[in-house]
Amino acid sequence: MKALIIADNNQLKFIDKEIPKPKENEVLVKINAVALNHRDQFIREGKYPGIRHGTILGSDACGTVIETGAQVDKVWKDKEVLINPNVDWGENPKVQSPKYHILGTPTDGLFCEYVTIDAEKIAEKPAHLSSEAGAALPLGGMTAYRALFHHGKCQKRENVLISGVGGGVAQFALQFAMAKGANVYVTSSDETKRTKSIELGAKDAFNYKDSDWVKKAKEVSGGFDLVIDSAAGDGINDLIKLMKPAGRIVFYGATQGKPHNLDVHRMFWNQITLQGSTMANDDEFKAMITYVKKNRIEPIIDSIRPFDEIIDAFEKMKDGKQFGKLVARF
Amino acid sequence: MKALIIADNNQLKFIDKEIPKPKENEVLVKINAVALNHRDQFIREGKYPGIRHGTILGSDACGTVIETGAQVDKVWKDKEVLINPNVDWGENPKVQSPKYHILGTPTDGLFCEYVTIDAEKIAEKPAHLSSEAGAALPLGGMTAYRALFHHGKCQKRENVLISGVGGGVAQFALQFAMAKGANVYVTSSDETKRTKSIELGAKDAFNYKDSDWVKKAKEVSGGFDLVIDSAAGDGINDLIKLMKPAGRIVFYGATQGKPHNLDVHRMFWNQITLQGSTMANDDEFKAMITYVKKNRIEPIIDSIRPFDEIIDAFEKMKDGKQFGKLVARF
Repeated sequence: MKALIIADNNQLKFIDKEIPKPKENEVLVKINAVALNHRDQFIREGKYPGIRHGTILGSDACGTVIETGAQVDKVWKDKEVLINPNVDWGENPKVQSPKYHILGTPTDGLFCEYVTIDAEKIAEKPAHLSSEAGAALPLGGMTAYRALFHHGKCQKRENVLISGVGGGVAQFALQFAMAKGANVYVTSSDETKRTKSIELGAKDAFNYKDSDWVKKAKEVSGGFDLVIDSAAGDGINDLIKLMKPAGRIVFYGATQGKPHNLDVHRMFWNQITLQGSTMANDDEFKAMITYVKKNRIEPIIDSIRPFDEIIDAFEKMKDGKQFGKLVARF
Repeated sequence: MKALIIADNNQLKFIDKEIPKPKENEVLVKINAVALNHRDQFIREGKYPGIRHGTILGSDACGTVIETGAQVDKVWKDKEVLINPNVDWGENPKVQSPKYHILGTPTDGLFCEYVTIDAEKIAEKPAHLSSEAGAALPLGGMTAYRALFHHGKCQKRENVLISGVGGGVAQFALQFAMAKGANVYVTSSDETKRTKSIELGAKDAFNYKDSDWVKKAKEVSGGFDLVIDSAAGDGINDLIKLMKPAGRIVFYGATQGKPHNLDVHRMFWNQITLQGSTMANDDEFKAMITYVKKNRIEPIIDSIRPFDEIIDAFEKMKDGKQFGKLVARF
């Protein structure tokens, strides 16, 4: 079978590998479609912990169960499924174990034709989604779901700001919060992304590079109950200013690095929460898929290309011009 | 009656004032004892918002109801009560209203012989406490109670670190967390305060000025589920390192100022909470007193002096050598 690995010198490389055989507790899945995450490109750039050359990349896939291990319910056979990319989350639903990692580094991932996976780690693809849309969902969807609901406690009619709406997680957060009935606002420095977000149902979209965006966002929204962010950096103080009292800022990344002058005085006086979040536990993976099914949420897809051309998708992600997930199919 | 005001040029000054008369919803309280808070000294140093010269200082007092307004239940007459220093917390239990402030600045406080106060704002002094111990309780007790339980969600058997145990709020947090059955640790740069904390029941006490205190605290405790802090500053990163995954840092002040390099990467990967807190709502004032009564908690008192000598107590607070509340009595 064909597989995409991170080879020596961090080059992407197609290799040919034997089709794996499922253990007793596993299923063999024939992959129909895969999707990229920033993580994949970060690995290619050498900017991710635990890189091991020779590893099959990829955390997001949708495929069809073609064989079930001896202890696995036969009902899975021929079902189209999404794969939970968590490895060893552990027993505590509140936080991952020290052994935790994500499929695709350091253990082999999903950018290949066939995978074997524990039957506990699959969930049926919602019927309203294509294989490509299903593949777009797992990692981004679960990260957004946990940040928004477990940590963010997003409620109907709350004012929610999703910063950096160009990202996959941010787009799921936008869709999930809208489905909850929140008033959702976004930020992006890209005009096309702002326009598209408003078409998707955002109440307004702000350019965080405008010097007066904080003032404007405050006037338009009246302040936010919840912000979902992955930038951190000095922009956190803008978010703190924009919070309603007792507001919550949940961040699942820090692409802008460390904040240099965190406004702790405003934080304690206004009883603000700054909450770190990462990925989601195995129950949340399933709950997220149920939520997507119930609310008939359609993941936003930028483009779909044949698996043979997946390296082009990495290039597009590097440029950052996509809006929606970059998908490849077999 | 005698009263202590903040006079022109931020001088403390005793004045003579008429005894006030209670309105329909108020009681007249003859004050038996009052206690100082850092806030009082900050006001004297001009380091507090909203200072108005001529204001009677003081947020903590215990006294006896000697007259009840027409609409107030007569049962209060002759009862010894604690006074809730909140003014206009407002309707939202999660956060104070914009009009919120604390007795003693900018409205007249409790460092005087008689006060009139809304009957909603008094609670019976727990029987196991002297007037002086009762006076020590309100502001510090309620701030600790909210930080520890509302925000901190302190649980039995959790590892809890109380930083800067010299402060009044920190000492209540130590006592309240011990009463909950938590394993409580403290920090202080003062050896006497560390020793006294261990005598009070802290599992261990660390000197945050020692270069290896983080390593030592980690070894001894295994990490903390909850930290109650009022320093913030660059020390926050030490606390972040000391947290167990999914740990919560609650801070109700920022005496060390803004952190300059907040370790957001560790925060999101370990799903750490950084939570601002201030004071407590009116229900928490009452719940805190019930908690103190049920657990027979005895506020720590540094010293008691006659009200005429209260300015000495301000001097002692300025030097920061006290362990426990500085109380003055009539």
